[in-house]
Amino acid sequence: MRTLPAIKRPKGMPEGSGSIEITDMLAARMQGALGSTIRELTKLAGRGDVISFAGGLPAPDLFDREGIRAATQEVLDEHLTSALQYGPTEGLGGLRVAVTELMLGRGLRVGTEQVIVTSGAQQGLDLLGKVLLDPGDTVIVESPTYLAALQTFRLYQARLVGVPVEADGLDLAALEASFQAMPRPKLLYTVPSFGNPTGVMMSVAKRLEVLRLAARYQVLVVEDDPYSELRFSGAAPTPLLALADQVDGAANWTVYLSSLSKIVSPGLRVGWLALPKALHAKVTIAKQSVDLHTSSFTQALALAYLRSGRLVERIPLIRASYRARAAAMMSALPRHAPGLMSFEEPQGGMFLWARLPEGVAAAALAVEAARAGVLFVPGAPFYADNADPRALRLSFSSASPAEIDEGVQRLARAWASYNKTRQVREST
Amino acid sequence: MRTLPAIKRPKGMPEGSGSIEITDMLAARMQGALGSTIRELTKLAGRGDVISFAGGLPAPDLFDREGIRAATQEVLDEHLTSALQYGPTEGLGGLRVAVTELMLGRGLRVGTEQVIVTSGAQQGLDLLGKVLLDPGDTVIVESPTYLAALQTFRLYQARLVGVPVEADGLDLAALEASFQAMPRPKLLYTVPSFGNPTGVMMSVAKRLEVLRLAARYQVLVVEDDPYSELRFSGAAPTPLLALADQVDGAANWTVYLSSLSKIVSPGLRVGWLALPKALHAKVTIAKQSVDLHTSSFTQALALAYLRSGRLVERIPLIRASYRARAAAMMSALPRHAPGLMSFEEPQGGMFLWARLPEGVAAAALAVEAARAGVLFVPGAPFYADNADPRALRLSFSSASPAEIDEGVQRLARAWASYNKTRQVREST
Repeated sequence: MRTLPAIKRPKGMPEGSGSIEITDMLAARMQGALGSTIRELTKLAGRGDVISFAGGLPAPDLFDREGIRAATQEVLDEHLTSALQYGPTEGLGGLRVAVTELMLGRGLRVGTEQVIVTSGAQQGLDLLGKVLLDPGDTVIVESPTYLAALQTFRLYQARLVGVPVEADGLDLAALEASFQAMPRPKLLYTVPSFGNPTGVMMSVAKRLEVLRLAARYQVLVVEDDPYSELRFSGAAPTPLLALADQVDGAANWTVYLSSLSKIVSPGLRVGWLALPKALHAKVTIAKQSVDLHTSSFTQALALAYLRSGRLVERIPLIRASYRARAAAMMSALPRHAPGLMSFEEPQGGMFLWARLPEGVAAAALAVEAARAGVLFVPGAPFYADNADPRALRLSFSSASPAEIDEGVQRLARAWASYNKTRQVREST
Repeated sequence: MRTLPAIKRPKGMPEGSGSIEITDMLAARMQGALGSTIRELTKLAGRGDVISFAGGLPAPDLFDREGIRAATQEVLDEHLTSALQYGPTEGLGGLRVAVTELMLGRGLRVGTEQVIVTSGAQQGLDLLGKVLLDPGDTVIVESPTYLAALQTFRLYQARLVGVPVEADGLDLAALEASFQAMPRPKLLYTVPSFGNPTGVMMSVAKRLEVLRLAARYQVLVVEDDPYSELRFSGAAPTPLLALADQVDGAANWTVYLSSLSKIVSPGLRVGWLALPKALHAKVTIAKQSVDLHTSSFTQALALAYLRSGRLVERIPLIRASYRARAAAMMSALPRHAPGLMSFEEPQGGMFLWARLPEGVAAAALAVEAARAGVLFVPGAPFYADNADPRALRLSFSSASPAEIDEGVQRLARAWASYNKTRQVREST
C-alpha cells in the first residue's frame, strides 16, 4: 500500500503530535518481537539445493501416506458433514477419547474431560499464556529451551528466567532458588524428554523432585512432550504428569501438552492440553476467542488415523530412521569437520545441541553456512538470558543420511571461509 | 483431578496468604470472562429434537460435498507431502493468490503480499488484538455486534464503546463523537454487510464517510466481511477497503478480514486478513507465536476447491436457500406468534434481529424456549454497553423451512408459558 499522506490533525488532538502511522499504534507487547531466525537465514542461502539442519521438520518420507489416505477416505465417506461444520471448542469428542488412550500408552491416566484439542501444541502454550500470565509475571524456563515458547511467553510480557539444563535435566538447586524468588514465578516450562534444543532426557529422580518443588512452591509445571515417542532405544520416559500421583498435591500443579506433529504430521496442526478441571474451563473460554475450535476436518482425520491403529506400527520406523540420521550426523561431524563442535550424543528426538570452539561465534558461522548451502540455528535465540554465543542446534530429522553427510561437508567449508575471513579481519 | 490438599507454605512466602489454587493465579484478563450463552441454553433443552435458531451455522445440506471430495482427492494425489508438513506462517502461497482473486471478485485490489491466512476470521481478530491492543485501549464497535469479537477484544482488556447501528449502518454523528474522545480509540470494528447480529447493510455513502472519519482521526477500521456473498438480491455490496482508494489516506487505516466459513465450510477453519504492509510483518510474528501457521492440509484443500471454480456456481444456490429460509421465518412469525416480535427484513446473511414487546425479557424467554425445544440467543451479549434486554437474534441458516415453521410454533408456546409464569408471579 502507498505511504501515508500527511494528514492534518483534527481539532481536539494534542498539538505537535504530528501524523502517525499504524506502526505507532502497536501494543506494548510487540516491542522487540522478532521474526524467525530460520526465515532470515533461508534468504541468505546462496544456492537452490540448500540442506537444512535448521527447522525441526519431520522427515517427509516418514509420513504414513497410505494411512493418511485411508483415514481421509473414511472422513469423506462417513464423517464429511461434521468435518465441514463448526464443532465444540474443546475438540471432537472421539478425538479427545483417542488422545486420552494415546496418553495412557505413555503412563498417563487423564480423564477425557481434562483434554482440550489445540491447533498444535504451540496454541496450547499461547492459551496458557492468555489464561495465566499478566505482564511482569515470572516464567521459569530451561536454559536453553524451545524458542517459540520464549516468543509466546514474551508476547504476554512475562519475565523469563532461565535455569541451566544438565545432562540429566534441570539444575535442581538453581530451580529451587528460582522458585524462592519473590514475587513467586507462575510457571515452569519444561520439555523433559529429548528437549528442544538440547535433546536431554530428564531423569526420573529429577522429575520427581521437580514435582515436589512445584507442589511445595505452588508453581504450575507446564510439561511439553512432543518428542517422547522418538527415543532411539531403552524404556519409554515417564511424563512428569504420570509421576505426579506419587507427589502430594503435584497433580494439581501439572499441565501436559503434546501433539501429533512429530509422530503423524505437523501440517494437520492437531495438538492437545491435559489440564486440571478448573483450568480447563478457563482455557476453553480463551480458545473460543482465539479460533472458536481446531479444524473439524483435521480433527476427524486425526481421529480416523489414530483409530486405525497404524501409529503403533509406525513409531518404530520413525525411531529407527531418526536413530540412523543422528548416527549419520555424529559420524560425519568428526570425519569432515574435526574440532568444529563438541556435543552430547542425543538418545532421541530430532536435535543435536553442539558447541563451537573458543572464539567461534555461532551467529557468524550460520551466515557463512547459509552461503555455503547449509542451514542451522545459532543457539542464542534458545536462551531466555545468558545466551551462549558458541552454542548451535543441528536438526538431523529432515535430511537423509546422504544429505546429512553433504551438509556437514558444507559446514566444514563454511568454517574454513569463516576462519579465512576472521584472519583477514584480524590482519588488517 | 482431586481437590488440592492443604499445602504448608514454604519459608519465604508471605504469612497468612494461605494455600492457593491454580484459579487464584489467573491473569487479570480472565476476570469476568464468560463461556458461551448458546452452550448454557443447550443444556437446558428439554428434548432431544431441539431446533436451533441460536448458532450461525451454515446449512449442512449446502456444503458442496462433491466439490470437497474432489478437492480432497486432489490433495491426496498431488500435494499430500506438503499438506502434511509445516508451512509458512503467512499461509500457503497458492491459497494467498486464490484468496486475492476471490477478493478481486468483491472489488478489492489487494496485493498477495498483504494477505495472511488465518485459522478462521476469528483468529484474525485475535491477532489484531495481540498486535494492536494494550489494556485500556478503546475499541469502537457497532451496537450490537458479533459477540465473539467482543469476547476477543475484552480478553485484551480493551475498553469497548458501542455506536448505535441504524437501518443503513453506523450512526455517523455518534461515531464521530466516539472518535473525538480522548484518548483516541485505536480500532473501529465493523461488520458492514449483513452484520451479525442485525443483518444490516451499511450504505455506500456511510461507508465513504466512515473511511473519511477513520483517515481523519487515524483510527484503524477493522472490516469483518464473512457474509457479503450471502445477499438475497440486488447488487454486491462494496467492501470499505474497496472504497478506501476514493478517500485520501484511508487505505492505510483499513484492515479487511473474511473467511470461507459461510461460503465453503467453517470446519476447515480457513480465513484471511488483508493488511497494510507494516502491519503484515507484525501480525506474522504474532501468528507464529499462536499456532505457527494454519493447517497445511485444510489450506491445500481450500486451494484445490477454490481453483476448481465450483464456488462461483455454488454461491447462487446458497443465496437462494438462505433467502427461502429467511422468508419461512418471516412468514411463520406473524402467523404462529403474532405480536411476539418486531423486526426489519434482512436482505442477506443468516440472521433476523428482533425485538420483544415491552416487558418481555429475551433472556427469560430464551430459557422457556429452550425448555420448549427451540434455541435462540438473547440480544444482550451482542452489546458492548447499553444492552437492550428485549432484543434477540434468530438464525435462519441451519434449520430447514419446515423446521423453522415448527421452531416458531415452539417459540409461540414458550411465550405462552412465559406469560403464564409471569402472571402467576405477579398474582402472588
